[in-house]
Amino acid sequence: MSRHDLTALFDPVSVVVVGASDNRAKWGNWLALGALKGPRPVYLVNARADTVLGRPAYRSVRDVPGPVGLAAIAVPAAHVDEAVDDAIAMGATAIVGISTGLGESGPEGRAREAALAARVRDAGAVLLGPNCLGVFDSGAGLELSSNPLPSGRVAFVSQSGNLSLELASLLVEHGMGFSRFASLGNQAHLEAADLVLGCIDHEGTDAIAVYAEDFRDGRRFVAAAREAADAGKPVVLLTVGAGEASARQAQSHTGSMVSSSAVVDAACHEAGVIRVHTPQEMADVLAQLCAVSRADGPRIAVLADGGGHASIAADVAEHAGLVVPHFSPALSGAVAAHLPPSASTANPVDVAGGGEQDITCFAKVADAVLASGEVDALVMSGYFGGYGVYGGDLETGENATAARLAAVARERGRALAVHSMFPQSTAAVALRAGGVPVYRSVEGAVRSLAISVRARDLDPLPVLPPPAEPLATTDYWASRALLTDAGVPFPGARVVTSRSDVVAAAVELRFPLVLKGLGLLHKSDSGGVVLGLRDVGSLLAAYDDVVARLAPPACSVEEMADLTEGVELIVGVRRDPRFGPVAMVGLGGIYTEVIHDVATALAPVSPHHVERLLRSLRGSALLTGARGRRPVDVAAAARIVALVTDVAAAHPELADVEVNPLLVTPDGALALDARTLPA
Amino acid sequence: MSRHDLTALFDPVSVVVVGASDNRAKWGNWLALGALKGPRPVYLVNARADTVLGRPAYRSVRDVPGPVGLAAIAVPAAHVDEAVDDAIAMGATAIVGISTGLGESGPEGRAREAALAARVRDAGAVLLGPNCLGVFDSGAGLELSSNPLPSGRVAFVSQSGNLSLELASLLVEHGMGFSRFASLGNQAHLEAADLVLGCIDHEGTDAIAVYAEDFRDGRRFVAAAREAADAGKPVVLLTVGAGEASARQAQSHTGSMVSSSAVVDAACHEAGVIRVHTPQEMADVLAQLCAVSRADGPRIAVLADGGGHASIAADVAEHAGLVVPHFSPALSGAVAAHLPPSASTANPVDVAGGGEQDITCFAKVADAVLASGEVDALVMSGYFGGYGVYGGDLETGENATAARLAAVARERGRALAVHSMFPQSTAAVALRAGGVPVYRSVEGAVRSLAISVRARDLDPLPVLPPPAEPLATTDYWASRALLTDAGVPFPGARVVTSRSDVVAAAVELRFPLVLKGLGLLHKSDSGGVVLGLRDVGSLLAAYDDVVARLAPPACSVEEMADLTEGVELIVGVRRDPRFGPVAMVGLGGIYTEVIHDVATALAPVSPHHVERLLRSLRGSALLTGARGRRPVDVAAAARIVALVTDVAAAHPELADVEVNPLLVTPDGALALDARTLPA
Repeated sequence: MSRHDLTALFDPVSVVVVGASDNRAKWGNWLALGALKGPRPVYLVNARADTVLGRPAYRSVRDVPGPVGLAAIAVPAAHVDEAVDDAIAMGATAIVGISTGLGESGPEGRAREAALAARVRDAGAVLLGPNCLGVFDSGAGLELSSNPLPSGRVAFVSQSGNLSLELASLLVEHGMGFSRFASLGNQAHLEAADLVLGCIDHEGTDAIAVYAEDFRDGRRFVAAAREAADAGKPVVLLTVGAGEASARQAQSHTGSMVSSSAVVDAACHEAGVIRVHTPQEMADVLAQLCAVSRADGPRIAVLADGGGHASIAADVAEHAGLVVPHFSPALSGAVAAHLPPSASTANPVDVAGGGEQDITCFAKVADAVLASGEVDALVMSGYFGGYGVYGGDLETGENATAARLAAVARERGRALAVHSMFPQSTAAVALRAGGVPVYRSVEGAVRSLAISVRARDLDPLPVLPPPAEPLATTDYWASRALLTDAGVPFPGARVVTSRSDVVAAAVELRFPLVLKGLGLLHKSDSGGVVLGLRDVGSLLAAYDDVVARLAPPACSVEEMADLTEGVELIVGVRRDPRFGPVAMVGLGGIYTEVIHDVATALAPVSPHHVERLLRSLRGSALLTGARGRRPVDVAAAARIVALVTDVAAAHPELADVEVNPLLVTPDGALALDARTLPA
Repeated sequence: MSRHDLTALFDPVSVVVVGASDNRAKWGNWLALGALKGPRPVYLVNARADTVLGRPAYRSVRDVPGPVGLAAIAVPAAHVDEAVDDAIAMGATAIVGISTGLGESGPEGRAREAALAARVRDAGAVLLGPNCLGVFDSGAGLELSSNPLPSGRVAFVSQSGNLSLELASLLVEHGMGFSRFASLGNQAHLEAADLVLGCIDHEGTDAIAVYAEDFRDGRRFVAAAREAADAGKPVVLLTVGAGEASARQAQSHTGSMVSSSAVVDAACHEAGVIRVHTPQEMADVLAQLCAVSRADGPRIAVLADGGGHASIAADVAEHAGLVVPHFSPALSGAVAAHLPPSASTANPVDVAGGGEQDITCFAKVADAVLASGEVDALVMSGYFGGYGVYGGDLETGENATAARLAAVARERGRALAVHSMFPQSTAAVALRAGGVPVYRSVEGAVRSLAISVRARDLDPLPVLPPPAEPLATTDYWASRALLTDAGVPFPGARVVTSRSDVVAAAVELRFPLVLKGLGLLHKSDSGGVVLGLRDVGSLLAAYDDVVARLAPPACSVEEMADLTEGVELIVGVRRDPRFGPVAMVGLGGIYTEVIHDVATALAPVSPHHVERLLRSLRGSALLTGARGRRPVDVAAAARIVALVTDVAAAHPELADVEVNPLLVTPDGALALDARTLPA
């Protein structure tokens, strides 16, 4: 997809700090100090001072003597427009808006901010912020932030400032740091998606971390992240709004549009994005992503000194969804060859004191295990790192073993993750130097490994179709017709508004029949649906009764499906304000209401993907023939669900399209009811 | 319950180290060095040396010149019996068996170990181990371990050595340490339960941590832990075997009997024990338990500087099962009084830079929030601890605020847990000094708070009844009779072995009837159950057909229950090798098989407790009237389930007692099928 050239932002020809200050409590001071560390010309602008930081200061950007590249704006809101316009006039190609009091202040500020962004865009420049906390590029020597940041290979795009400080310190513990940092602020022009795109070709970046509360154009973010993932630059996302309280807070904080957690999960799935929930998790996962080798699957071996550590690591791994397979006799034998007789050698491996006897056993076992093809990764847990700490004479050997372990992970191309009780030991440092992530807790090592297993076979991204002719009305019959026209099968049916209509319908349709009162909010709850009508007499009686009780504008007479061997599904497509149409599919009826068993995906969803969603349901055994039933036709159901998502995606004027129930039997699938709601 | 006096173990009159050594790689060296740090006489015994560590050594315990208190045995397995017998003869009241090669080596070693333990017990002494890693008492100055341990207020009882090192270093980060440590080893005499009991009255202990792979007498462990919890000494348990691999490992490692995770959970629930899954979690929870105030409920407030930290903490909290309620207008106003206008004040609270303006705002907000009665705890997350680090002039104020925060938590009697990006800052140290736990990650703070919310209203512990007369046979009819005699209602039924029996049954019973072929493994799968027989003719036809196809030894003719408004439950009581009879109750039929929706408790279970289990099921809405159904008689079902658990508990010869289905309708409950299996 089309990208902004962000060189102007991350490696500008010069930096102008507008609002530069000697006051050490001000942004204009921090920005100036940071800018001056870099290799490029820096111009300090202050409307009232002749010098700042002992250097000549300029009254306006217009007075700057050299070419203007990036202008960092740290003046009160009232002066922002002038400063930006001056910078554009002087040829600035990037604006970093630190100033607050625009878009986040209310409707008036939002309008000013939008106009400002438009002027920047029209000038061919880019705007980061406003209300942002700066930008950083380690390789380019650009440091426009409130605090120094550690250098490394992670690009961090963030809507929060303090989180960047926390992530920085957590990465430092992993021996890591930032290649780039960009604070999003109000995203008036550059959005998270643009920053992600701008880092894909950045040589200094191995992985991209994003903290966002509001995704703006969510589909664009998904496409950008997917492009990064496909290019081998995995994206890790931390967002909020999973719970009620944080959604409340994020909305009041920035006016952000917060999407539901299930929608974000669906978006991450499409995008190949790894979602995390805390800064610690983010740092831990980034360490896996930047490691010398990554895991291509969930099978791991565990290697520890002591049964306790071995067992705990295995339990945590299985709980995290990893698999700890029993070794083949051949592999178990190969492992045993390096260990004392008391060792456990079948996975988890407990060296049982073998480390004291021969510290190199860890590397030998790791090599045997990672060469075997029986696992995708090895997790070491517990004492390693401490042999040198406690028994001084083992330190050299332990460090050499650490280096050898890193070499094994590289040579075998399989992941190695280490939990060490001694995360600051020289052996741990040696492991990190070789590209092996080392964690201070076993859950840190194992859970981050589990969620960073490389995704394979990502589906093509869903493409939104061009909008179709909007639906004129959204009553039951119009909804049904919309779906029928798209190929969704329904039972035969007729609209009736009189007793003679009823008789005519009875002639054309096949008994047993169902009578539905139309235009009623909850048809079945209000007694507006009568099932199992076996002859004209009972059909007419039912019609008379429904009309007398509920006075619906019309009724529908429909052939009644045979539910005997069927399973009811529910399909709904709702429109998220950020991610557009989102499909939910689940087991219908009591399952949906009682255990809320649904799966979510961005619409439109392919039949293949729908099948996967259906099989991911907790109750999916119902579809494949539990308790001696015949399996139902999941493929037919998937085709119909996919059609429903196609229709919904083509109708942005609809907030909701629902088929409930969708009956799926061993011999096919049939929509039994439909509903649409205008946006 | 009866306790061993463990003064002899933790505060002996003297220590004899048998196998004391100058070799720095040997246990006999470490023990001697540790023992000599203490305030009591130490005697070093070595069969071949005249001196050890420059002190006179004795050839045998029998040569020791003073009173013998604790004897630590670190000699090869072949010499253990002699050493222990000598120690007993000299009046030793505690034996610490470091030596390996006994119970864990095979059947012969187990027999020797059992005999040894019996001799120690008969002498009125206690034996820790063998195959253990020592004992430590901070207050008594007893240090018999391989490494120095930090002093503090946590008693740790462990079946693993390396875990004690890890827990020690994790506690040190929290400014905590051990009051006592005891390594369990093979538990030949003293078991985990004994050590827990022995710490209840220990003044230096605030909380008891246990790592165990094998609980031995599980019911005794539950009773001991419960006694500790009731006495205000909460017990935290780390165990393994939740996954397949660790169960495999633990069994091969120590021959331990590993109980299923659900059984351990049930045991923990009864015992009021907090279960954790990693050493880090254990340390984090212990910090909450030893804090100045604990949470009595799940409602928390979040206080942060920055919307990101506020929202993430709230999300993590809700995910962990805590509640983040919206503040009342009054409380929100009280909070706002201390903060700048840009702050969010309704929970989560974002001070939005308020800390820089007035660092004391944190304590003021905390006081308002914890005094309000609207929450049970406050979680601070993010920057606090850093105001002093970055802005030097704020350091004094931040430290004073930290002290004030601790005072607020104490005065208000409500929990305060802090996540700080600066966990080693002076403010963090000041918080810890005041009894406020400080965590390096928000998940550490929040999850540990969630699982340490004080349990209320624990049920009385289930009491195993005396064994009843064992069941002679366990066929269907005998099982049914056993339960019927106990008061479990079944539909009317007759055993039939001939067509004339069938006719007689038809006269006595009420149609419709069910015919069941008896003695068949899976009655319904093999077509051995025929439902809905409405007259004698169809009953006879069904009988003839079942006899012809399956040739059962007998059949049962039973009145058929009306399932229309009913929900099927399943009840089973299985015998765990460690914890005895364990009850499972769940939604029956398709729910059990498809979504495995069951709850577990130690049997016998009271009707009140059964009701709670039923209401805890994911699908419990089925019982309370989902989708317009009438609610079913949960109380009646609970009474019957309780009866089934009573019966199973009284029959230790049965491995399994099952009622499936147990039909519960709006008007009562009825067992429709039963099964027992011999142990």
